[in-house]
Parts: sequence; C-alpha cells; structure tokens
Amino acid sequence: MTILALTGGVGGAKLSLGLSHVLEPNEVTFVVNVGDDFEHMGLSISPDVDTLTYTLAAIVNESTGWGRADESWDCLSELENFEADTWFQLGDRDLALHLFRTALLKRGKTLTEVTQTICERLGVEYKIAPVTDSSLRTRVLTAQGSLAFQDYFVRLKCEPEVSAVEYHQRTLASLSPAINTDEITGVVICPSNPFLSIDPILEVDELRSLLINRDFPVVAVSPIVGDRAIKGPTAKMMRELKMPVTCVGVAQHYIELMDGYVIDDADAHQMREIEELGIRVRNAPSIMRSLEDKVALARVCVDFLKELR
Amino acid sequence: MTILALTGGVGGAKLSLGLSHVLEPNEVTFVVNVGDDFEHMGLSISPDVDTLTYTLAAIVNESTGWGRADESWDCLSELENFEADTWFQLGDRDLALHLFRTALLKRGKTLTEVTQTICERLGVEYKIAPVTDSSLRTRVLTAQGSLAFQDYFVRLKCEPEVSAVEYHQRTLASLSPAINTDEITGVVICPSNPFLSIDPILEVDELRSLLINRDFPVVAVSPIVGDRAIKGPTAKMMRELKMPVTCVGVAQHYIELMDGYVIDDADAHQMREIEELGIRVRNAPSIMRSLEDKVALARVCVDFLKELR
Repeated sequence: MTILALTGGVGGAKLSLGLSHVLEPNEVTFVVNVGDDFEHMGLSISPDVDTLTYTLAAIVNESTGWGRADESWDCLSELENFEADTWFQLGDRDLALHLFRTALLKRGKTLTEVTQTICERLGVEYKIAPVTDSSLRTRVLTAQGSLAFQDYFVRLKCEPEVSAVEYHQRTLASLSPAINTDEITGVVICPSNPFLSIDPILEVDELRSLLINRDFPVVAVSPIVGDRAIKGPTAKMMRELKMPVTCVGVAQHYIELMDGYVIDDADAHQMREIEELGIRVRNAPSIMRSLEDKVALARVCVDFLKELR
Repeated sequence: MTILALTGGVGGAKLSLGLSHVLEPNEVTFVVNVGDDFEHMGLSISPDVDTLTYTLAAIVNESTGWGRADESWDCLSELENFEADTWFQLGDRDLALHLFRTALLKRGKTLTEVTQTICERLGVEYKIAPVTDSSLRTRVLTAQGSLAFQDYFVRLKCEPEVSAVEYHQRTLASLSPAINTDEITGVVICPSNPFLSIDPILEVDELRSLLINRDFPVVAVSPIVGDRAIKGPTAKMMRELKMPVTCVGVAQHYIELMDGYVIDDADAHQMREIEELGIRVRNAPSIMRSLEDKVALARVCVDFLKELR
C-alpha cells in the first residue's frame, strides 16, 4: 500500500514531516511540485523539492520553513558587491545542493534520479518524487504581464494582481517513474497553495486522470483558515481570482478530485456547506507550529483515508 | 603607448601586481590565458583571469596566491557530504564571482565584457583582457591519455607524465577586442608556465603574428631558477618534454618571440649561453615574495623594454 502526498512549499512540507512520523517509508510517496523550478546563474534549482528534502532531513531552517539551518551568506554578500541578482536567497550551504543537482543533471541524470541520490546522501529514507522529470513551468498572468513563477513569487513578492495561472509544457510532462500508480491506497493533498503548488502537480495528465477515475480515497487539507492563508499568497490570489476566500472556496476548487476534506476547528461552522458539495469533512487544529501539531494533523488525514476506503 | 603583459597563474599575477605599481592604467594591458577555463557544475570558471583579478583587487589569498582572502568553505564542506566532486576548491566568496560570470555569459555577454564588469565592481582600474572570447582549451597529452587541463592540473595534481600539450579550437580564437594592437610599445612575458599559461595565449594567431613581426621589444622573465620552477609543474614538464631544465631551456622555447630575457641572479653564469642565442639578458632577483620584490622585478622589465626600444 502507498499513500501519495501531494505537496509544494512550506505548509506541505510541514504536513509531510507529520506523515513521516505516522507512516513507514514504504507506506508513503511524497509527490512534489516542480512548477517553481528554474535556472538561476547556471544553477538548476527546485525550491519545493529542496524544502521538503531539508525538512525530512531535519536540516531545514525552522524559522523560515525553507533553506538550511546554520546557513552562512558569504557568497550572497559578495554577489551584492557585484550588484548581481540577489533576489533569490542563495545560502552557502544551500548552494552545494544546487551545484550538486546541476552537475548530475548535466551528466544526464533525471531530476527523479538526482532527488533520490540527494535523499540518500542526506539520510532521508522516505521517497521524495518530483511529479515529473519534464520541464513543467508555472507562469502567473498578472496586471504586469505574464511572469515566470520566481519573478512573481520571490522577486516581486507576489505583489502583482493575478488574473490566471498557466503551466507551460504541461502536455509534455509524464509522471516520474518513482511514482508507483499500481498500489495507491489513498492520496493526501497537503495544505499548499492550490494554484502554485497543487495544480501544477495535477497538470500531469497521468496523475490527474488517476485522481478523477480513482478507486482510492483522496483527502485534502485546507490551506485557508478563516479568511486567511496560514502562509503565502493563497488568500490574496483567491481574492484576485474572484473566489470566496474560505475553506469552502478551496473545496469548490478541488471538488471533483477529493472525497474528504480537513478544515480547521475555527471553520467548523462551514462543515455543512461543504458536505452539501458531496464531500465528507473533519475538523482539526490545522495550524502546525510544533512537531506534535504536524503529527496530529497527519494522523487525522491517515485515519480519515482509512474511514473513506 | 601600451605594454602588453602576457600572464597566466600565480607567478604571472605577482609580476603583474608589480607592473601595476610601475605603470599607469593606460600604460599596460594584462593579456590573460584562458586555456584553463572550464565548466564545473554549471559554472563558467576562468582561473587565471580570476587569480589576476583578485590580485589586482587586493583580495587574493596571499598564502596560496589564488582564491579569495577571508574565504569560507561552507559550500565545499556540504559538497563533501554529498560526495560530489570537490577537487576544484570552490570557496563561498569565490563562488559569487563564478555565479556572476556565468549569469552574464548566459545573457550573451562576452568574457571580455564580463571581465571588464567584474573589474569595475571590484575597483580594479587596470585593464585585464582574456586573450580571446573564443573557447580555446588546453589539453595535456599524458601517459594516462589526453586530459582536460583541470583534470591534469588540479584533479591529478600534475602527476601524469606529459608528452605534449594541445590547444583545442585555437584556429577559431580571435583576439579579444579589449587588446589594442595599434599602440603596443612592448611586451612582457611573465614568469608563468610556458606550456600551460603563455603558449595558449600565443596560440591566438593574431597575437603570435604580431610578436613574430614585431616593431616593439619583447622581454620575458624566466620561470626557472636554477633547475627548478618557482611554483608549479614547469620544471617537471620540461624534463618530461626532454628540454634542458634551465633558464636556457625556456629561452630556446621562446627564441623567435623575444628580444630581452630576465633571469635570476642565481643563473647569471648562464648569461653568455643565452646571449649566444642572440638574446639580450639582464639578471635580477626574480623570486617575488614581498610587494617590493614584485615592484623591483617589474621595474627591471620596464627599464629593459625602454633600452631595447
């Protein structure tokens, strides 16, 4: 049996860490967004894969949720002297991962293979799979034109108003061979940004079809609590895309793909509205500060999947 | 008037620093070897250009003669954890230069333009010109086969026995536009490795013709003192190439290209033998430890050029 956990940035990595305490390595595959991936100064960078890898390797910077703990910034400070692009925060230790990945990709390894090697070297026993080895790239259509993901997200700090999100080269994207589709017993959609983290994963046709024609349950966790995102631009984007900024809005977005929905205790009053969409609901504390929070929320998801099976 | 100083690694950078104390920025152009340049983990690296740039910017590591002073090695230590290639010493600060260069080259800038920009940002007023913007690459033919320069020099620490040195794509190499050939009043061949630093510069046809058909004097400084090289594999290579390992051996190598030759005081007894080759000779202390040593040797070269004019 394998549960697939679909995950993007920091929120997804937190629930994934919880899942890694509830499930054995052979019971879960973490399927990670690659729509954020980009080339920067010759380096091949996969931000969401890295955030999860650092989190599961217990070397993540816990205060930011991304990047390395015990990081140093000598390279970046020199780049500032050169008046080079420094909007993407390249830490000295983090650079090693980007250099190593770039070197292996240049030798013809796939992103899946590179990710496996990195996990081995960092002692991560859980399987982290980039959803595809193809170059699927998120672009954000905004009042300032069509922006590459990192331009929107990091350089412009999500400030431009969003009118749509596009996924380039999605038709070419085939599912990573690390994802075994024969033995799926359930899927968890982590509380990541629906447009920037989860949708690009679902743009891989094989995975989307699998979920639409599923013979296993899918549980999603709302990234919205009250009228806010726990982190990042989810709420702002929902407003700009004219969606209700509530956990119900997210439920409507995922409606054909999920069977069960975990919302925050604070939103329990919206349970009936969601159930009327034909979706089963559980409420739980969904703001994950401590490891205990993450493990508890992961347990809710796994138990819910069992119930729905 | 412009003096061209042909220079490669650490020895060349030392004399170049001396020349920068004797000549004004408009009186000298440093023409630098690019045969060592290579791609490493996605980075475009120009070791000899960097050594000279760091030296003239007064940020070189004075104990090694290359790399940055006040360097940190967090990235490299992580690369070791990844079991990645760590034979090329990438310091955290040094990495910034490689990333910046790589980014500018990827935007379509030439190596000449990139080098000018780097010098501006580091406050280097002297003109550093890579001899060519083309991809001229040194390969070393050895008992272990044909090796890329960095494989031979850094990874294998110059251990394989050398039978010949080759310069790939030399026929395509055109002279850097930063080198003004109309106003040359003299050339200094720095005490760099003849085969690995100076010959690849002279493989650029336009420069070699200019030196062969010269109407200006050329002064070379011997990289051999006694039967040893001051630094690096020059003496070992000369032995393997069946050349006499003396300053006379080097003179014979450069014979059609130079008018004056500066040898170490310790080799003054070989003066006559060199003069018999039709070359004027000066002896001087040529081992450059202090800044004063560098300036003094530079002054000998510049005065010698004036005499020969």
